[in-house]
Amino acid sequence: MRDRLAKALERPVTRNAIMGVILFNAVLLGMETSGSIMAEAGPLILMLDKLCLAIFVAEIAAKLVAYRLSFFRSGWNIFDFAIVGISLVPGAQTLSVLRALRILRLLRVISVAPRLRRVVEGFITALPGMGSVFLLMGMIFYIGAVMATKLFGDAFPDWFGTLGLSAYSLFQVMTLESWSMGIVRPVMEVFPYAWAFFVPFIMVTTFAVVNLLVGLIVNSMQDAHHEEDVQRTDAYRDEVLSRLAAIEARLSGSDAAPEARLQDESARKIAYDRP
Amino acid sequence: MRDRLAKALERPVTRNAIMGVILFNAVLLGMETSGSIMAEAGPLILMLDKLCLAIFVAEIAAKLVAYRLSFFRSGWNIFDFAIVGISLVPGAQTLSVLRALRILRLLRVISVAPRLRRVVEGFITALPGMGSVFLLMGMIFYIGAVMATKLFGDAFPDWFGTLGLSAYSLFQVMTLESWSMGIVRPVMEVFPYAWAFFVPFIMVTTFAVVNLLVGLIVNSMQDAHHEEDVQRTDAYRDEVLSRLAAIEARLSGSDAAPEARLQDESARKIAYDRP
Amino acid sequence: MRDRLAKALERPVTRNAIMGVILFNAVLLGMETSGSIMAEAGPLILMLDKLCLAIFVAEIAAKLVAYRLSFFRSGWNIFDFAIVGISLVPGAQTLSVLRALRILRLLRVISVAPRLRRVVEGFITALPGMGSVFLLMGMIFYIGAVMATKLFGDAFPDWFGTLGLSAYSLFQVMTLESWSMGIVRPVMEVFPYAWAFFVPFIMVTTFAVVNLLVGLIVNSMQDAHHEEDVQRTDAYRDEVLSRLAAIEARLSGSDAAPEARLQDESARKIAYDRP
Amino acid sequence: MRDRLAKALERPVTRNAIMGVILFNAVLLGMETSGSIMAEAGPLILMLDKLCLAIFVAEIAAKLVAYRLSFFRSGWNIFDFAIVGISLVPGAQTLSVLRALRILRLLRVISVAPRLRRVVEGFITALPGMGSVFLLMGMIFYIGAVMATKLFGDAFPDWFGTLGLSAYSLFQVMTLESWSMGIVRPVMEVFPYAWAFFVPFIMVTTFAVVNLLVGLIVNSMQDAHHEEDVQRTDAYRDEVLSRLAAIEARLSGSDAAPEARLQDESARKIAYDRP
Repeated sequence: MRDRLAKALERPVTRNAIMGVILFNAVLLGMETSGSIMAEAGPLILMLDKLCLAIFVAEIAAKLVAYRLSFFRSGWNIFDFAIVGISLVPGAQTLSVLRALRILRLLRVISVAPRLRRVVEGFITALPGMGSVFLLMGMIFYIGAVMATKLFGDAFPDWFGTLGLSAYSLFQVMTLESWSMGIVRPVMEVFPYAWAFFVPFIMVTTFAVVNLLVGLIVNSMQDAHHEEDVQRTDAYRDEVLSRLAAIEARLSGSDAAPEARLQDESARKIAYDRP
Repeated sequence: MRDRLAKALERPVTRNAIMGVILFNAVLLGMETSGSIMAEAGPLILMLDKLCLAIFVAEIAAKLVAYRLSFFRSGWNIFDFAIVGISLVPGAQTLSVLRALRILRLLRVISVAPRLRRVVEGFITALPGMGSVFLLMGMIFYIGAVMATKLFGDAFPDWFGTLGLSAYSLFQVMTLESWSMGIVRPVMEVFPYAWAFFVPFIMVTTFAVVNLLVGLIVNSMQDAHHEEDVQRTDAYRDEVLSRLAAIEARLSGSDAAPEARLQDESARKIAYDRP
Repeated sequence: MRDRLAKALERPVTRNAIMGVILFNAVLLGMETSGSIMAEAGPLILMLDKLCLAIFVAEIAAKLVAYRLSFFRSGWNIFDFAIVGISLVPGAQTLSVLRALRILRLLRVISVAPRLRRVVEGFITALPGMGSVFLLMGMIFYIGAVMATKLFGDAFPDWFGTLGLSAYSLFQVMTLESWSMGIVRPVMEVFPYAWAFFVPFIMVTTFAVVNLLVGLIVNSMQDAHHEEDVQRTDAYRDEVLSRLAAIEARLSGSDAAPEARLQDESARKIAYDRP
Repeated sequence: MRDRLAKALERPVTRNAIMGVILFNAVLLGMETSGSIMAEAGPLILMLDKLCLAIFVAEIAAKLVAYRLSFFRSGWNIFDFAIVGISLVPGAQTLSVLRALRILRLLRVISVAPRLRRVVEGFITALPGMGSVFLLMGMIFYIGAVMATKLFGDAFPDWFGTLGLSAYSLFQVMTLESWSMGIVRPVMEVFPYAWAFFVPFIMVTTFAVVNLLVGLIVNSMQDAHHEEDVQRTDAYRDEVLSRLAAIEARLSGSDAAPEARLQDESARKIAYDRP
């Protein structure tokens, strides 16, 4: 019976139906933001929203029954479980923040649609390679926040009063939003050499961010092409070297045995070439 | 007679004449924006503008006669038809928005000049490959707009009052324009944790946009080079493998028949190598 | 005598001396901006500046004598001639704009230092390849300026009163500077649908600019690597194919004549492979 | 005894212990920014901070004893020495700027962690290749600052009063922060043609900066892939050419001597192919 349930859940019909419910639910949640629509059809919309939630709970319950604990082996399943779970937290219908989080259910489209899933997985697998640059960014921000708080905290408590406020202000400076007219020029009226802190900070963080973004993208794209090329080239090279070995074997007179020996040698050579 | 009309329309002289009329019309429409020029030569400019429109209508009518319904098979023809058609909508000469749209006729230069056409076609053909990222961006914006409206809509009706206003404000935040001093700092005075919504939103959308833009460009450029390289390499590899096959055939003694067999094999091998 | 003059001008000593005068002159012009330095040593600085100018004039006069009209064949010579010439325009010492342009003489460093020259030449040679995108940008700006002037010119004469003002405002919008809080939100209070003009404008121009910049750079870099690789690969492929042809010739029995024929064939084949 | 000290310093245990002290010290310095934490545990934190400093001084003293003057051969050692040295400057505990600089000790993590070290070294080795572009940027800024000071200095002393103020304002303009609404529109009310200075300045500097950033990154990434590919390809090509030479040698009848001769020739050929 568990097998039949698993098969039923994996059918395209089921997937498309769930996708439809997700999209319908997203439209409902969009309608909830409009006062005039809620005034007219509020109870109906809330009721349909609860119905959608019930379907999601039923789907996940069915999956839990079908796959038991191996359900939690897939990151996407945990993702679905958490997003649906948020709506079941007691008080979720009254706390405005938790109510607002319900629209995150639309993200379940990613876990259902394979193409979107691949894009997101592509990004996630590329992130670890950039770990060192992320670490450096974190260090630069921590150093910057500590220094800004110590230097400017007393004079500008709104911007640099605590580590948290400083980090937020430095993030704003990094995005270049009103950094000069809004922040640095006022600070320079009290500390004339403040530019010596902010201008290098902008240069270093801008460089690191551009580095992170462009690097991540170009790198992952090149790797894709590269890998494919390398495989085709390796196949071709194996072919040429083994044929050359065969010709040499023919020329050296004896027939079967040396050929085998030479092909072995060429195989060893190619294996050695690969890093 | 239809054939002669089609040939006359495709002659370089006709193309260049139409291009000239388009550019002349663009200059006229530029002049129309100047009050002093209109005060002096207003009626003349309006008359010349009508003349240009008449020429465009005549050109499209001629094309319709020459190619009949196959006229609509080319996207560029539909583009020309729509742009000229806008000016013929009743009231087009009185409604200020429709009058302003007339300058879009300058875009017809793209459909007439082959080099510009190729650039635009290059972009358009590259877009589908980025479909998933566009979809993700749309989802992020919809989720962001619904959340912002629910969370901040009551306190800041000008910025987040409706889904539309929220989407516009989030677009502004994504472009980093006054996001902190103009929007988030005021919002944080009411909701101190608003940064927890806006900072991740900025990170995710900035990343996705840079991804879209750089990806689209670098990808299309690499593909161009790549394709050309791959073709030359394939031609060379076919040559080497078939020559090696011929040598092996010669060495195995018999002359014509095995060579053919081996070349077949090498052809199969290469076809297999291609993805 | 002209030959000896040309040789003297091309000596490294002369080049370095001129470079020194250019840098010394740049420092002098920097000092001129300081009121306190001018109060103390004003006449000396002005005198030294005139001396530097005299040296530049003498250098260019010497070059004109040495190379006569072929002096004007090099773009860099015309560049030097124009920059020095500006200072000799009557009234150049009184008109503040022309006085300010004297600092452009520092750009002569580029024409004297070969490394900087190569960087600038690299950019200039890359520009024509992007001609179509520049043309498209020009068209988009002209269309945008005409539409903005017609639609918003009467209500916002300071920003969109004339074609020129509109073009400047649209350039500001394109750089994303205060586009929303400063320009579009005020405009939307009069024309609620103004976003339908500005948001697509931002998307299209941002895309085109990123395209231009990244394209220009990545393209030129790839071409450099690519060209080098292709040449090495072609040399190797010629070698392999001619060796294979030689082996085939040996195998077919006759010695000298067929080899030549086959090598011809392989050469033809390779020439055909090259696009 | 010096050798044993050097070995003890290079042990992973020592490295990790130092790393731990660095991170613990960074947390302490972060705590120092909070008034409430300092009110409660101020003396303890200051004492622990002094302890950390003592450990750093002891570590560097030990390294100086172990490696003597060769300690200063590594840039990273000089970096550590300078960062720890700042805290020992007399008055470092009273001057607020020097106190703030103590958090730079966190940067020592880079010199201790090999992965971060490699990232930073990668950037530093890439910088010289971009030297010319840096030089050009410097020139453009100097020229721009001199011109802006001369043209707008008298009317806007706050923004363009001195070379330094002009350079700062131009840096702000380059980052596009409030360049139009904040700076250029007010300037244009006095000098209507000011845009003719600022718009080209923005175009040139934006182009140069994008160039620097993207160039630096893409270049270094491509080189990494490229180098690896070229090495594998060279190894394969050497193999093919020497095997072809061997086959030719076999076919020409004589066995050992000509083969050697041909391999020599192929080696020469390959060496010649390499640029």
